[in-house]
Amino acid sequence: MSIKIGLLGFGTVASGIPFLLHENSSKILDASRDQLEIAKVLVKDEEEKERLLAAGNNFNFVTNIDDILQDESIAIVVELMGRIEPARTFITKALEAGKHVVSANKDLIATHGKDLIALAQDKGLAFYYEAAVAGGIPILRTLANSLTSDKVTRILGVLNGTSNFMMTKMVDEGWTYEAALAEAQALGYAESDPTNDVEGIDAAYKAVILSQFGFGMAIDFEQVSHQGISSITPDDVAVAQQLGYVIKLVGSVEETASGIFAEVSPTFLPKSHPLASVNDVMNAVFVESIGIGESMYYGPGAGQKPTATSVVADIIRIARRIKDGNVGKPFNEFSRETKIADPADVTSNYYFAINTSDEKGKMLRLAEIFNSEDISFEQVLQQKANGTTARVVIITHELSKTQLANVTEKLTAVSDFELLNTFKVLGE
Amino acid sequence: MSIKIGLLGFGTVASGIPFLLHENSSKILDASRDQLEIAKVLVKDEEEKERLLAAGNNFNFVTNIDDILQDESIAIVVELMGRIEPARTFITKALEAGKHVVSANKDLIATHGKDLIALAQDKGLAFYYEAAVAGGIPILRTLANSLTSDKVTRILGVLNGTSNFMMTKMVDEGWTYEAALAEAQALGYAESDPTNDVEGIDAAYKAVILSQFGFGMAIDFEQVSHQGISSITPDDVAVAQQLGYVIKLVGSVEETASGIFAEVSPTFLPKSHPLASVNDVMNAVFVESIGIGESMYYGPGAGQKPTATSVVADIIRIARRIKDGNVGKPFNEFSRETKIADPADVTSNYYFAINTSDEKGKMLRLAEIFNSEDISFEQVLQQKANGTTARVVIITHELSKTQLANVTEKLTAVSDFELLNTFKVLGE
Repeated sequence: MSIKIGLLGFGTVASGIPFLLHENSSKILDASRDQLEIAKVLVKDEEEKERLLAAGNNFNFVTNIDDILQDESIAIVVELMGRIEPARTFITKALEAGKHVVSANKDLIATHGKDLIALAQDKGLAFYYEAAVAGGIPILRTLANSLTSDKVTRILGVLNGTSNFMMTKMVDEGWTYEAALAEAQALGYAESDPTNDVEGIDAAYKAVILSQFGFGMAIDFEQVSHQGISSITPDDVAVAQQLGYVIKLVGSVEETASGIFAEVSPTFLPKSHPLASVNDVMNAVFVESIGIGESMYYGPGAGQKPTATSVVADIIRIARRIKDGNVGKPFNEFSRETKIADPADVTSNYYFAINTSDEKGKMLRLAEIFNSEDISFEQVLQQKANGTTARVVIITHELSKTQLANVTEKLTAVSDFELLNTFKVLGE
Repeated sequence: MSIKIGLLGFGTVASGIPFLLHENSSKILDASRDQLEIAKVLVKDEEEKERLLAAGNNFNFVTNIDDILQDESIAIVVELMGRIEPARTFITKALEAGKHVVSANKDLIATHGKDLIALAQDKGLAFYYEAAVAGGIPILRTLANSLTSDKVTRILGVLNGTSNFMMTKMVDEGWTYEAALAEAQALGYAESDPTNDVEGIDAAYKAVILSQFGFGMAIDFEQVSHQGISSITPDDVAVAQQLGYVIKLVGSVEETASGIFAEVSPTFLPKSHPLASVNDVMNAVFVESIGIGESMYYGPGAGQKPTATSVVADIIRIARRIKDGNVGKPFNEFSRETKIADPADVTSNYYFAINTSDEKGKMLRLAEIFNSEDISFEQVLQQKANGTTARVVIITHELSKTQLANVTEKLTAVSDFELLNTFKVLGE
């Protein structure tokens, strides 16, 4: 007897699944203890079905979700449609119909995961989604299984391949944001509306899921602040390099005394930091913990085969657990009361780029403003003035989000200074 | 009821276990579903026992293994003594007495693992050893659980922290091998007899275990060729840098058409390769596979807390499986017939450093020798002659182990050339 699978969607990732099942059949069979069989594939309409059949795809394509939901021989539903609807409704119905579910849908899991996880648990069903964070990198299962013995204190991740590709062009080759975006779009890495990738929204979805696995806390997507890469200028990139840093879009989740804090923001990484050499479309998750100390998990964050590999690993795990009679366990069992950090407890070094008129006393005035918020400087760089304006770059010592908000308010309130950019700086 | 543990040995790693059990108690309790309790600790003799008690270690120390073996309340034995004997005997006895076993002992597992694994399986007991490879990096469980869906084609690893610390000094700061060794010994990274670390023996043990998890093949330690770092000179390091490479001691296991091949050798890594920036005592395992493509797992390869974290993760896994009633499963279930590669199928680029007398026609003669073995050059560098001898550096295109053996034999047979060093070169 084989384990029958119903696929929802037959896009790029989905079509990587038959590749793996074929190319790696004996290992997968040994691990699953049973043949995995794609019994039905849901597609949008008759037109898509005809197109796929004509292209030589030899599957039982269906256009009505009920054909899968009502098929009692199908044990596992694999959702690879993306976006919120109809994925949410279909997964809900699949769970209600007693089917285990695998998904790679980070948007959905980050925004409606709680309900789906609760429903799966209630029904004694598996709901796995390794592919939802960092595609091919097996980070969720590693956090859930191997880091059970450890206490994670901070997770830093290069979690979005598109923006990392763009940042690599901007850092290594000095491209502007606009040129990098155009190239990413030309290569198919960025969509015509690139907002989710470049504004840190996609990475914020992943930060929500990492918070659950790394810290046992279910924060809401709205609680993850996100700042994108569109405001980064070649000047910022150049000064970062000069000071020994590389700028990347980093998702971070950390636990402070009062709770956890998650955000996505452009971050100055010291060149020697392992995340600093994660380039192009690659992703990496850097974990700081009391036991291991520092560990990093690196790989492709997207793509057909990497994502399909994570999906099939989830399917195998479900197949094994069905055999073992313990299939109902949640993907992530680590759960604590969710506490959000007090902004006063969230600290980092920061980079400030400020324009000021090139007049006597401006530097003193600037120092006074920072001093009034008890912020001290680690490095200051006044760049050559053009006669009328001077550009001042400051790397601060540690300051809190409260101090950051206060000093930002003061800087923008006075007409002497134009605050160009503020980015987090990771200490050595 | 708690799950009782018997510790064999109370050295550096063992004493990290109570740290984790205390500092991370609620998460570990949730994951284990039961309190983990160190019931007894085996130490060498009364003297060690008195010393440990006097130092404030509040454990039930025993000096006779039978006190643990015959204690029916002890479910899990954790062996952290290292070396072959008496660890091998004690683990065997523990399994025979019906106890699950966790070990961090790579020497033992690489050389006598087969028998111990078979005995555990025969008895329906768990025998886990995540900490045996790359200390804190959860690479074995990741290969066993997450990469089940994938087919691994090559594993490259920086697997020995001591030699990597030394290579970092030699590469980044131009130190000699001797100076780097002295520093490693002064810092306690290298033992007074550093053979296992610097000659690649320790990394070869790990390659044996990685072969099992990555390729399902149980190769013998004797089948892993190993070359150490003691022959690397500052000249080699300098020319590597000049040509865009970093030299590291790399363990590699790859599958060819005829079977697998494992070796440990100094390797020229392109500077852009993720392994090239793994520095100091850190370890990393770089996995090439048909699904994910390229992934890397980075972290501390040794040390008290990282290693203890892996050990406790194993203990938690056993505790959970005891509860679930499926504790007898092998750590690694991937197993195929072991086939060792034909040397003609094992290919790589190579670096040759050769001294020759500074006479006319020598370069032609050298080119003839390589050409006679059908080996072509990718880069050739003739370094300034000192009047009597010239140093020639060659980076070849791909050649097989058979070609390597043949050309090496020819070069050493003729008196015109002195073959200084031959190292593998990883292609871009």
